[in-house]
Amino acid sequence: MTYSTINYEVKDRILTITLNRPDNLNAFTVEMADELEEAFKRASEDDSVGAIVVTGAGRAFCAGMDLSMEGNVFGLDEDFRPTLEDMTSRLDEPTIARGVRDTGGKVVLAIYDCKKPVIAAINGPAVGIGITMTLAMDIRLASDKARMGFVFGRIGLVPEACSTWFLPRVVGIAQALEWTYSAEVFDAEEAKRGGLVKDIYPADSLLDEAYAIARKLAKKSPVAIALTRQMLYRNAAQAHPIEAHRIDSLGIFYQSIGEAKEGIASFLEKRDPNFESKASEMPPFYPWWEK
Amino acid sequence: MTYSTINYEVKDRILTITLNRPDNLNAFTVEMADELEEAFKRASEDDSVGAIVVTGAGRAFCAGMDLSMEGNVFGLDEDFRPTLEDMTSRLDEPTIARGVRDTGGKVVLAIYDCKKPVIAAINGPAVGIGITMTLAMDIRLASDKARMGFVFGRIGLVPEACSTWFLPRVVGIAQALEWTYSAEVFDAEEAKRGGLVKDIYPADSLLDEAYAIARKLAKKSPVAIALTRQMLYRNAAQAHPIEAHRIDSLGIFYQSIGEAKEGIASFLEKRDPNFESKASEMPPFYPWWEK
Amino acid sequence: MTYSTINYEVKDRILTITLNRPDNLNAFTVEMADELEEAFKRASEDDSVGAIVVTGAGRAFCAGMDLSMEGNVFGLDEDFRPTLEDMTSRLDEPTIARGVRDTGGKVVLAIYDCKKPVIAAINGPAVGIGITMTLAMDIRLASDKARMGFVFGRIGLVPEACSTWFLPRVVGIAQALEWTYSAEVFDAEEAKRGGLVKDIYPADSLLDEAYAIARKLAKKSPVAIALTRQMLYRNAAQAHPIEAHRIDSLGIFYQSIGEAKEGIASFLEKRDPNFESKASEMPPFYPWWEK
Repeated sequence: MTYSTINYEVKDRILTITLNRPDNLNAFTVEMADELEEAFKRASEDDSVGAIVVTGAGRAFCAGMDLSMEGNVFGLDEDFRPTLEDMTSRLDEPTIARGVRDTGGKVVLAIYDCKKPVIAAINGPAVGIGITMTLAMDIRLASDKARMGFVFGRIGLVPEACSTWFLPRVVGIAQALEWTYSAEVFDAEEAKRGGLVKDIYPADSLLDEAYAIARKLAKKSPVAIALTRQMLYRNAAQAHPIEAHRIDSLGIFYQSIGEAKEGIASFLEKRDPNFESKASEMPPFYPWWEK
Repeated sequence: MTYSTINYEVKDRILTITLNRPDNLNAFTVEMADELEEAFKRASEDDSVGAIVVTGAGRAFCAGMDLSMEGNVFGLDEDFRPTLEDMTSRLDEPTIARGVRDTGGKVVLAIYDCKKPVIAAINGPAVGIGITMTLAMDIRLASDKARMGFVFGRIGLVPEACSTWFLPRVVGIAQALEWTYSAEVFDAEEAKRGGLVKDIYPADSLLDEAYAIARKLAKKSPVAIALTRQMLYRNAAQAHPIEAHRIDSLGIFYQSIGEAKEGIASFLEKRDPNFESKASEMPPFYPWWEK
Repeated sequence: MTYSTINYEVKDRILTITLNRPDNLNAFTVEMADELEEAFKRASEDDSVGAIVVTGAGRAFCAGMDLSMEGNVFGLDEDFRPTLEDMTSRLDEPTIARGVRDTGGKVVLAIYDCKKPVIAAINGPAVGIGITMTLAMDIRLASDKARMGFVFGRIGLVPEACSTWFLPRVVGIAQALEWTYSAEVFDAEEAKRGGLVKDIYPADSLLDEAYAIARKLAKKSPVAIALTRQMLYRNAAQAHPIEAHRIDSLGIFYQSIGEAKEGIASFLEKRDPNFESKASEMPPFYPWWEK
């Protein structure tokens, strides 16, 4: 599989996905959306991938939707007016899937389902879909050159890419309202204060920091890592903690008869563990939700 | 429509609602509740209103429920004991609506449904309903003279005005538990540290700051602003991000064939946009929830 | 009732639960789980208990699951493979209850249901279940000697004790992902920055600080305190604020005809209130959820 708008490189169990339209500040296109969606689905099942780093080629992370291509998004009869019913019962029909569904959302849903931890190395401007796509990634690091903005409101649009679902979870509802209302671009310091990024690094050490985290995560139990992410999002969304308890118990049970045997042995023997489970072979209770 | 406990003034697309019982530190009464509820419902559909600023007359924002009027709240047969079933199936019957329903809650639900962004300019003491009513407002600014407190526990009451729903969303569950348990009054610095207010200003510049934000919001697309607020609260409350994706997609679709045309044109032409949509005429998928 | 792994001491309406296996850094065992579960259920209905402080004997708070006893957790036919259906329909059958259910989760669910406020005085290392059990407690104070870690991933396990439900509510999803992925041990400063603990105190004043808070809470209305906690967790988990409004209204109604009479009188008379309600006798709408 080759891509034309992104690079996909695996080395030492770390996949680097590089947004790669540097002459256009990596502006997002329908083709990039399709390639990113495919890349995250592929990485999810590829056992040679233990962690993912996402960054941008050149001086930008992603300058948002390529507005010159906006016309491509909709190829519909101009009288067509979609309803919520269409978005529920016909979501995968071509008219809806290609003509109406938000392209950023399709990428973000693939990240949400991905079994591998994802680190965003935000190396420069990340606005619109450039920042909303990172909300579904697990850890966001910023270069001191990074600029972010939920700029949809500038041009009369609304937040997309499921950002209304993710952003309040990451930064709280008050900060989410302020940033999406104002639609202004802000710097890495404001992003850190607001809880959007874990930390800020000089531009030339950003990727080193991202890879340092990725290397640690890539050595952990692939099954435990994949379970942890789904447990956090899905259990926290339940109304009562007993729903978490049901899943916790299964997770602890299956890891205890599986990978935790090596984990505990290595701990007692004071050596590094050697985890060999595969995220492509999850325990029998996974997925515990309906697809 | 005239009011006796609040002022309602529209100027340059900004509505100022002033809590106006300065001799009583703007203490909240049943009449004020009714007037606020009516005012937010009216402003929601009034296309001359682009943003709302709420503040208090005199030195207080709102000193809480006027305890001398508490007796007015309940006019029930003294043996009546309401049940959750009453609050579900009979919520709008007079016995429940006037006799049992929390008055602050009725105001807050009107704010929640309001299509206009709301900025609280907390100019002084804001305790009890004085602070809980602001939780449903989008942006809270505090004067350095402000004092806040979730003081219900001081007098053996429990939090009201849906604050148990809003407060954990704004400040997290740990801070919410601490403030509601302690029932103590705290200053603007503690409020800012805890994430309750965006920032603190000298008393004489607080309103200027609130209006500066309101002016910016009042120039944005009225439909996009109204959608953004409902999308953030309602999508984030769903269990899975795909529910956000359905609504995002419709929002992006309808804005793309509507107000975003002007937004993109203005962006490409490097001029200010001239948004003319009306929140009283929302796109066909709104509301996407059952009333 | 005597306990062998914990101490249970009530003095001046404050219950102190001390994790008491100091020679093992208070490592968590199945017996400790059973005793903690019983202790929180007992304290919930014991009207002589107004607030609870939890701490550890000796230099640790709790060093996590006692790995030497891990084998005790499962006493099952080795071919048995539990399913989510088992965890739903057979949760209280011995095979599941003793053989599969996460022991930390049973403790945390008892804390969640407890009508009394709970303060964790984290006096030293608190890792694994040592820290996850505190997430269901209301206020966490740390000694400057405290070290915390969601260390499950070190040994190939996943988070337990409903921590995937509580942790995002306490610290947000981003910090929750980072700590559970990394599985590293961190100090009290990092815990405070991340929002996990309210504040840090010298080791020799930690308990004094915890008791100072507990004394204040133990003087408040027992019914109002019990309602507040359940309202915050349960109302915030609802999709729409009107669900909070139904419960708020009932809470305000019943307290207004009950304990708030004394509260308002004491306020108007500028004296301390004398609350005498009992958490063992809750108002008729409690519990408002299905058991």
